[in-house]
Order: sequence, then C-alpha cells, then structure tokens
Amino acid sequence: MKICVIVPILKNEVLEEITYKELDNYKRKDTEISIVSLEKGPASIESAYDEEIAAPWILEKVKEAEERKFDAIIIDCMGDPALDAARELVSIPVIGPAQASMLLASMLGERFSIVTVLKNVVPLFWRSARKYGFESKLSSVRYVEVPVLEIEKKKVEVETKLINESKKAIEEDGADVIILGCTGFIGMARKMQETLHIPVVDPAPAALKLAESLIDLKLSISKLAYPKPPLKERKI
Amino acid sequence: MKICVIVPILKNEVLEEITYKELDNYKRKDTEISIVSLEKGPASIESAYDEEIAAPWILEKVKEAEERKFDAIIIDCMGDPALDAARELVSIPVIGPAQASMLLASMLGERFSIVTVLKNVVPLFWRSARKYGFESKLSSVRYVEVPVLEIEKKKVEVETKLINESKKAIEEDGADVIILGCTGFIGMARKMQETLHIPVVDPAPAALKLAESLIDLKLSISKLAYPKPPLKERKI
Amino acid sequence: MKICVIVPILKNEVLEEITYKELDNYKRKDTEISIVSLEKGPASIESAYDEEIAAPWILEKVKEAEERKFDAIIIDCMGDPALDAARELVSIPVIGPAQASMLLASMLGERFSIVTVLKNVVPLFWRSARKYGFESKLSSVRYVEVPVLEIEKKKVEVETKLINESKKAIEEDGADVIILGCTGFIGMARKMQETLHIPVVDPAPAALKLAESLIDLKLSISKLAYPKPPLKERKI
Amino acid sequence: MKICVIVPILKNEVLEEITYKELDNYKRKDTEISIVSLEKGPASIESAYDEEIAAPWILEKVKEAEERKFDAIIIDCMGDPALDAARELVSIPVIGPAQASMLLASMLGERFSIVTVLKNVVPLFWRSARKYGFESKLSSVRYVEVPVLEIEKKKVEVETKLINESKKAIEEDGADVIILGCTGFIGMARKMQETLHIPVVDPAPAALKLAESLIDLKLSISKLAYPKPPLKERKI
Amino acid sequence: MKICVIVPILKNEVLEEITYKELDNYKRKDTEISIVSLEKGPASIESAYDEEIAAPWILEKVKEAEERKFDAIIIDCMGDPALDAARELVSIPVIGPAQASMLLASMLGERFSIVTVLKNVVPLFWRSARKYGFESKLSSVRYVEVPVLEIEKKKVEVETKLINESKKAIEEDGADVIILGCTGFIGMARKMQETLHIPVVDPAPAALKLAESLIDLKLSISKLAYPKPPLKERKI
Amino acid sequence: MKICVIVPILKNEVLEEITYKELDNYKRKDTEISIVSLEKGPASIESAYDEEIAAPWILEKVKEAEERKFDAIIIDCMGDPALDAARELVSIPVIGPAQASMLLASMLGERFSIVTVLKNVVPLFWRSARKYGFESKLSSVRYVEVPVLEIEKKKVEVETKLINESKKAIEEDGADVIILGCTGFIGMARKMQETLHIPVVDPAPAALKLAESLIDLKLSISKLAYPKPPLKERKI
Repeated sequence: MKICVIVPILKNEVLEEITYKELDNYKRKDTEISIVSLEKGPASIESAYDEEIAAPWILEKVKEAEERKFDAIIIDCMGDPALDAARELVSIPVIGPAQASMLLASMLGERFSIVTVLKNVVPLFWRSARKYGFESKLSSVRYVEVPVLEIEKKKVEVETKLINESKKAIEEDGADVIILGCTGFIGMARKMQETLHIPVVDPAPAALKLAESLIDLKLSISKLAYPKPPLKERKI
Repeated sequence: MKICVIVPILKNEVLEEITYKELDNYKRKDTEISIVSLEKGPASIESAYDEEIAAPWILEKVKEAEERKFDAIIIDCMGDPALDAARELVSIPVIGPAQASMLLASMLGERFSIVTVLKNVVPLFWRSARKYGFESKLSSVRYVEVPVLEIEKKKVEVETKLINESKKAIEEDGADVIILGCTGFIGMARKMQETLHIPVVDPAPAALKLAESLIDLKLSISKLAYPKPPLKERKI
Repeated sequence: MKICVIVPILKNEVLEEITYKELDNYKRKDTEISIVSLEKGPASIESAYDEEIAAPWILEKVKEAEERKFDAIIIDCMGDPALDAARELVSIPVIGPAQASMLLASMLGERFSIVTVLKNVVPLFWRSARKYGFESKLSSVRYVEVPVLEIEKKKVEVETKLINESKKAIEEDGADVIILGCTGFIGMARKMQETLHIPVVDPAPAALKLAESLIDLKLSISKLAYPKPPLKERKI
Repeated sequence: MKICVIVPILKNEVLEEITYKELDNYKRKDTEISIVSLEKGPASIESAYDEEIAAPWILEKVKEAEERKFDAIIIDCMGDPALDAARELVSIPVIGPAQASMLLASMLGERFSIVTVLKNVVPLFWRSARKYGFESKLSSVRYVEVPVLEIEKKKVEVETKLINESKKAIEEDGADVIILGCTGFIGMARKMQETLHIPVVDPAPAALKLAESLIDLKLSISKLAYPKPPLKERKI
Repeated sequence: MKICVIVPILKNEVLEEITYKELDNYKRKDTEISIVSLEKGPASIESAYDEEIAAPWILEKVKEAEERKFDAIIIDCMGDPALDAARELVSIPVIGPAQASMLLASMLGERFSIVTVLKNVVPLFWRSARKYGFESKLSSVRYVEVPVLEIEKKKVEVETKLINESKKAIEEDGADVIILGCTGFIGMARKMQETLHIPVVDPAPAALKLAESLIDLKLSISKLAYPKPPLKERKI
Repeated sequence: MKICVIVPILKNEVLEEITYKELDNYKRKDTEISIVSLEKGPASIESAYDEEIAAPWILEKVKEAEERKFDAIIIDCMGDPALDAARELVSIPVIGPAQASMLLASMLGERFSIVTVLKNVVPLFWRSARKYGFESKLSSVRYVEVPVLEIEKKKVEVETKLINESKKAIEEDGADVIILGCTGFIGMARKMQETLHIPVVDPAPAALKLAESLIDLKLSISKLAYPKPPLKERKI
C-alpha cells in the first residue's frame, strides 16, 4: 500500500528526513511512504493563520495524491490543517495526526494532556479537542516554549522539558496519557514513555497506523459527512 | 464607525448590491459600510473546500481592513471561513455571521433550526454548531436545494421553500427560532417572520449589529484566545 | 428607540445616577433610556431569595414598560431575576445582563471568569451558566467580598480587588475573558481592561447594546419558547 | 416526623383533599403531613409568571414551616417554584417534585418522558431538565391539553390521554420511564403503570419519600451551595 | 418490607455486623434487613477485576433474593458490581450505593467529591460518574490510602484522614457535598458532617432509604431499559 | 506478532471458523491469530447478565494469554465484556470491538448508527456509547430481531434486514456511518458497504487492526487508568 505524507510547510529537509526515518520504524513492510511538502505556504505551522495559508497548497497535494494512486493521505501537522476540505475532495482516507492521536489516547486512559511547542498554540488544541468530541477528556495543554523550527537543534533541552511538563500534567492535571503536541517532536515519545511509565502518543506514527488500518479494512471517510464540493468557477 | 464587510467570493455585483442595500436598512446612521470581495477564490462557498481556497485571500482583505482603519470586520458567509485566523491577525473585532446568529438565536428561544441552500452543506453546520458550543441547541439543518448563485433568480421559489422547510422545522424538529443558513438569503427573513410568527435570524444583519455593539463597548477578541502568529517565512 | 432599564431593587439614587451616566456613554444617540426601580423588594440582590422577592414587582414594571410603548426592557441585575416570566408577559425583547454578557464573552474567547461581590452568590453564577448553556465555558467565579451597597463608597478598594481576582482568574483558572459579576460594578471595566489586556465585559452596557441590536433587527423572544401565561385568577 | 407540603396556589380544597389522601397512601405511619396553601398568588401554576408571583408567598410559608418545627418541606408543584431561594432560607430539607421525580426516573431507566397539562408549559420542563442536569435523559415532553383546574372534572378523559401520550413517548420517543408532568395528576400513575408496564413516577409521592429519606439520613441541603441570604432591608 | 443486602465479598463477620448495626439505625421499623455474603469471590472489592469475579456469585444471590420474596436488593459496595445484570434478572428494585449516593448528592449541592480507600480505585469512580450521568458534578476523587480490610482496625486514623481529605475537597476542588467512597466507611459520615458542616453521604444507608422509597412508591426498574435475558445454555 | 482472540462464549466451532477465516482476510501477514473460547459461561452474549457470567472465565483467558506471550488480546464481543478488568490484569493491550468500532466510526463521519441482533440489547449500546464518550455521536440503535446463534443459518435474511435497517438509520436517523452491532455478523459489512455507499464498520476486524497498530506503536493501556488489582484472597 502507498501512503502520501504531506508535510504542510515549505520544504524542510531535516524534518522530512527525520519524519521519513521515524515512520519507517513504524510502517508495515509492504507500506510505501512518500513525503511531499509545499512550494507555497508557511515555514512552520504555529497558528490558525499558518493553517489557512497552507490549506490551498495542501489541497493541491491531496488531489495529486489521489491521482497518483495513493491509498491514503496523512496531513502531517498537529493542526490537522485543511482536513475537512481534503476529505471532501478525495475518496481515499485522509488522516490528521491530532484526531488520530486523540482517538487512540481516549482508548488508552481516562484523560490525556497535550504537550506542545508554544504558548500561543494552546487555544488551538482546546478548539480541536472540542471539534473532535474529546473536550472532556483533555486535562491540560502544556508547552515547552520552543518554536517548531528550533526543535531539532535544541533536542536535549526539548526532551527534558517535554518530560518535565508531562510530569506536571500527570501530577497536577490528572493526565494518564500524554500526546505530543507537534509532529516535529517525532521520535521523542519513546524515551518519554520509558521515563514516565504511561503511554505517550507520537502523532505521526499514530496517523500512519490508522491509515494502514483503514486501507486494510477497506474503510474510507463517509461521503454523506464529507460530500464532493459542487462544480463552479474557482480561481486559485 | 467604519465596518468592512468581506464577501469572501469572486466579485458578484448583484449579491454585493443586495447586501449593501439590506445592511443599509439595519445599520446605524453613523456606520459606514464598505463591501469588498476577492480577486481569487471560489464563485460561491458551498463546501469546506470553498472555505479553504477562499481563506488566504480573505486574510489579505482582513489585514488591509485594519490598515485602512476600519473598526470591525464581517466575513460575510455562513461558513465563517478563516474566522479564527482573522482574529489572530488583527486587533479589531472580526465577526462571523454563523457564530453571531447562533448567539442571538440561543437567547431568543430554546432550540433553533438552520435552513440552508444545499444538502451537501448540512454537515458543515453541525460542525460549526459544535465548534461554537451550540450543538444541543441545534434542532435540525434543512435545505431548499438551490445553489447560492441561483438564489436571486429563483427568489419566489426560494422564499416559498424556506417557509415550508421552516414550518417542518417547527412542527417536526421542535425549533422555536429559525436561522437563515446562507448570507445569500439576505432580506428574506422579514417575510418569513411575518408568516411563521417566530424569530427568523438574518445572519449578515445580525453580524452587523454585533460588530457595532462591540465597537461601542470597546470590546475586541481576546488576544489570549487568538494570539498574534509568530513571525516567520511565509510564501503566499 | 426607548429602552426601559429596571433596576430591580428599592430606590437607590446613587446607583441609578451612575447607571444612567454610564449607559449614556454607550447608548446610541437616538436611544432614550428610562430607569425605574421598585417600591417593594430588596435593597440589593445577593441571593436567590432576593431575586424571588423582587420578581413580582419587576414583572409589574415589565408590563408597564410595554404599555408605555418601550421598545425593549433590561432587568439590570446579574441574577437576571424574573427573566423567563418577563419574556412570557410581553412581546418586546427583555434582556438579562448575565445572559447578555455570557453570550458576548463566549464569542470573545475560549473561557471566561466572573468576578462578583460576595462568596455567597458564587453558586448562583454556576447555576445561571448551566441554565444558559455556558457551563463548559465558565472557568471560575471569584469575588471581592464587598456587598453591593458598599461598592460605591469602597470604589478604589473594589477596583484593586477586581483587578487582583481577574489576574488570578487568568493565571490560575485559564480565563481569557472577564465578566463583571455585578451590575453595581458598572464603569469599572474600562480601567480593568487597560490593566489586564483582555476583554472585560460590563454587563449592563452589554445588555443595552444587545437590546438596541434586537430592536434594529426586529427580533424578539420566541413566543413558542416563552408563551403568554393562560388567563386565570391571580391575587398579587 | 413532620413534613410541610406547600401547595403553592390559592386555596383549592378539592386538590388539597386529594393530595392529602394520596400522600397518606405513601407516607410512613409516623409521618405527619400538613398541607398549606397561599393567601396570595395564582389559582394554578402554568407558566414562569405563575411561579414568580407565587414565590414570595411560598417563601413565607417556608420560613413558617421551619419555625413551626417541621422536619422537611415539599413545594408541591412540578415547576419547583422558589426552590433555590427556599433552600437558602432554611436549614431543613426542601424538596421539589420535578427534581425528585427526575432523580428517581434517571435511576429506573435510560430515558424518561414527561406528560404534562398544556403545550405552553413544555419549554419549562426542558429548562428544568437542563437545570437539574438531566437534559440528555429527557426524551420528550408531551401534554394532554387540559388546564390544571380542569383535571379533576375531566378525570376519565385525562387518564385516557395520559396513557395515549405515554404510549407515543415509548414508541416514538424512546422513553422507558414516564414522569407525570403535573402534581394535579396525583394518583393517576397507578393505573397508567398497570397499562404501560413501565415505571410511571408520581411526583408528589416521590418528593415525599425523598423527604422522609433525607430526614432519616440526617442529610440536608448544603449551605455552601445554598447560603443564607445576607441581612438587609427588604420590603415585601 | 424485606430488603436483602448483598455484601459482595467473602464472609466478613466484622463488616457484616457493623453494616447490620448501622443500617438498623436508619431503617424503618417495619423493614427487615437480611445480610448475605458470597461463598466465592474476592475478600474485598478494590478493582474492576474484583467486581467481575464477584459478579456471577452476586447474581446467584440476586436470584435467590427474589425467590425468597424480598422486596428489594442492595448490592452493598461502591463499585455497584453486577448492577445492570441484576436489574435484568429480577423484577424487584436493585439499588447500588454509588448510584444512590450520587443521586442524592446531586440534589444536595452543586458539586460533590468522593473520598475513597486507595489511589487505584480512583479511575473507577470517574467511570461510574460518567456512567450515571454525573461527570460534570464530580469535583474530585480523593483517598485515604487504607485498604478496605484495614478500615476497622485503623478507625481513628481513617476518620482523621477522611476529614482532612474532605477539607481539601471543599477548599481546593470546590466540593459542597462529600460522598464516602467505600461502604466499609459506614457510620463515619456522622462525625464528619459535624466537623465539616456540609452533607456527607453514607452510601449504604442512602441505598437503603432509596430502596424503601421505591418499594413504597411501587416503582421498580424499567424492563424496557433492563430486559430479561433470553433463554439459552449457560454453564456457570 | 501474536494476537489472542477470546470468543467469550461456550465453544462454537462454526463461529470460530468464520471468525478465523474473516480475520485472516484482514490481518497482516506476520500476525498470528489464536482463537480461544470458554469452558464455562453463556452460549452467546445478549444481555449484561451474559457478560457478567462470562467475565471470570474471560479473565482467566486474559491472564493465560499474557503468560503465553501474546502481544495483544481482543475480547471478541460487542458487549466488550470484562474489558476494564482485563486491562487491569495485564500489561499488553486489550481491545474491545465496541470501543474500537466507535472510535473508527467517530472519525469516518458525524453520526453513526449501530444495527444489532435483538431489541433487548439496544439499551446496552446506549450505555456503552455513554461509557466511551460517544453518546452524542450515536444516532440510533436498530436491530434485526435474530438471535446470535441463528445468524449463520439465516444468513441471507440477516443480510437483507441489516441493509434495510441501515437504510432507515441513514434516512430517518441521520447516520452517515453504520456499525455492525454483533461480532457474529462478521464478514457482512462488505456487501452492505457496496449497497449503502457509506462506511460499514465490522467490529472484530476493526479491533484487530487497532491491536496491530498499538503493538507497532509500542503503546499499551495506561496503568494509571487501569492499575493492577491489589493482592488479596480471591476464591474463584
């Protein structure tokens, strides 16, 4: 099976490489992963504004992915940008890591916390938890105050802060599951899980496994819930 | 006070004219309304896809509106496209007609129904009701099966269908307030209200009055909930 | 347009004067405001008991206001006393400041806190937030421990305490909008907003602007939700 | 133990007699029931307006009941008029039949319907279900279109209609428990239950048994939730 | 009336004796209480696992109780083990102390906290609050870290800890009612209530009074919600 | 990877064979599936009673599965019997098909309906939807009125009825996704999906793919949410 992973930002070779390498750890042997990024859009996604300016270019990649016979699409960002529109456009499954990781987290425990990059993205997660029906399961959103584009170079500091904030989420906010609040943290869940002794959900791998699962189950998104957009003039 | 009404579609002189004329009925004498539309984007908004391809161009108009010293902005579409992002970008109030009309409807009765254009936009309203916290107040979403761009030429048929669907909403779904589910229906609430004897909320005028109210109250959107996007490279 | 503001307590000239002066700042030029108070009832409203003993006299003023051709009525107290009954009695809009300010606050941010007068009114606000459907948006109710009738003479102390409790609401409870929890605090929002840098909703002005908006929109309360009481013997 | 049943309307000897006789069937041998009614207020309660004009006189009876050493108070009307205020005023338990019957119904099945007197009281029950936290358990509110004061003389017709509406509630609305929506229906649950084969909750007897239970358990209403009203001038 | 109290653990004479003695304080004079325990199952219930291994033996006692003409059954454990199944098996009311005490607590205040035995049973209470529809009323679950079987011998220590945790629940978590989170704490509510000055619900007595109430009201569990299990082969 | 599928009923060779064959269609090549059934318990699960009498024997199989080095466990019944207790007992993931299929369905559309075997299991699904947090996503529970043990011999009739009830769920209840309400329907989703053109979730395959996903992701159930039961005497 072929899965298209859209990293919905301007080309970032370091991030693409890490993402590819990490997903390679989790994918099935017969899964082929292709990573694409955007020619236009933001260098990273840290606001609803970034999501909106990325959206039209994500949606082009979504259409191309279906034409190129991919079996599923992952929009590789915890904002799940353009997810609803993407599901309208194509017939193959489109998965968002935020929704995928909240779904798994809701099964693994009673209440999850999200630990993310910056304070200013905190309200985005409360909104998406409400959108996906998990508001009462979200115990807190915490952050390490490191921008997406500095995660890699501050890796040790980031891992320490992620563990510290997760501990506070467990002790002060009642979390029993942690979700990494940025796909740029990919791979960091393993060490955290060893230290924290509770499940730590890494969103892109979670999305990958749900994508593979839907393909095997021959399930896709309901066209009653996400109907094809009517034909009309559109200047893009 | 100056209010910028962004009609978030490709230029449509008929619709702009009706919108201007109708809002003129409702605005305060000292309110100046400017209507702008998009150079790029969709000819009408009838899907999440349409919302996403309109969004970047809406956001440009949003920034311009603040620079041009408008006091508030209305994004004149029942999809409230790009609303969260717009609120991040500027300090003046940005109002969406869907949120504005649900807020008023929630005060006027116990349960409201939305009557909209096409079957395929029905799920969009369930999602926005959940987003704004009014899911348990929304009794049904009904539709007249007429596309946005045909409303004007089928005006009599549309008004009849709106009344018929509203009657069913009242009798079968328990609605005690009706919201018009498309800003293209502007002006039709008056006759409906006379026939139905319950409140019928016309979304663009509702948004206009909330905008004027916030300006007078010197209230704007909370920057803790909608923080400024961080600076970074963005190719638009 | 003519709006009747019922201050639902025994005559209190100082409070009426401040209320009139403050509402004058916010009203439209063509709005005429009349303030009435009660000949019977409590000297202030700080319990459900106070609300109930004020109610029959409020309702008389409500009937009179419609007979005297007012266009809308505000029951000027954060308990929204007798609001449902008032909406049954008349055809013009009746607005309660608690409902009005929660509606606006729910649009301005993700979660609001209410800062009120006394500890013993705290549970009243949790009940009204539930009644109006905003329980999940209410982050906390805090208080300054000053009775309504001492607000004016302790004005500086009250303003300081309001700001301090609001800061705690923001930092400890996650609020991004503040609602003043007593109409006796009228006018204090301005300075608070300058200090706190988030929206502070002043309830009576908020109610005034919603009243003006409904009048302009020719919208009133749904008679399906608030039907006329049947005729019968009533000894008052 | 001594329980004061306040029938919160103008003296109605027929209703008082039936109420006394029926409660006598359900009360414990050592329970003494006293029935009091109002000198002022409405002849029956069929609107929020009726509730409000009854409230001050109910509250006088509530205070008297505590002074006269009653052990608990029942406000014998499905509107639960003045319930919150009554709980503030006294230290003994005050029970409302609406809350009492919803509590029991929520234990007896998954979803209950209320069958009441008139169409115009339907919205009152949706509001009280929300107030008490049972909105998602309330499947429908149906009515027999007979005013409270005609129940006794149309007894056979009322019983037939109650059964018919209950059957529709079961078959069309998914109810598995029925609550009688007026304390004037007292005694009619027995025959209904025999016909319908599901639990039919008679509100006044339900309130009586909860009152006896609280007395035996030495439990009363929390004074943190219903604090004593502060002292002040009150003209009643 | 005859009520069967199933203590759903291996025979524990001390606990049975205390339970009998305490219930005797609360029961009506004409109520006969029989206490039965299990020949197989766990020595105490402190996990979902304990509940499940007790369940088949509880259900045998439930069937026997109906055959022996009991009028109601109490499953005397705060896990309410096998409650749904028991309600399917018999026609007489079956009461669980957790549901019974949450119902009463929801009437006595705005938010209750549960103080229980061990940290590891905390998630069980969040699940049962959600099951019974009281999730938004449960402010916290606290514990004294004493196993069920050591309560009696550490009685003084336990009472002190219960009071301390309850104080924290009131001050830090906003509780205005306390529920004892283990039927092994029976009798300790009295002293706590004197110290805390808010209602403290003792679950087994609460269940007893609700059982007596249902019997008097001739109400039982709805067979539409808890239908008889179909006949089939079952090896137990 | 090795997955243990516990069919929680008395040995049923036909069902085991079909289950094995069907799961074989969906499993990854490197997944080994073992099917075990119970020596004691019910012949099928069609009530909470059946779930409870199966539970202790399921839990023995759960313990054995971990000792025999399985990587995950599926309790193959739409009642998810003994799921919470199983998660307490072991460290490997334990999956219930009801929870697994509701999770997937909640991602595939806005509202799902469940079509099950018998009328008397309908309330069980409403309870499990509430337990798992999907009550507002469940549009209806419909049934074909065929017992579990007759599904195989009435296969054609069952498939026709499943399709008919699903059509009603779509048209009358607003469902956009269907969940098969019994693991005995395994394999029937394919044809239904072709006819209905919306996703039809087959619960056991859904559980299988989630189990494989969790194993690959090295995620298991949170031990803070499902702690190990304390040691004690237990007679089973």
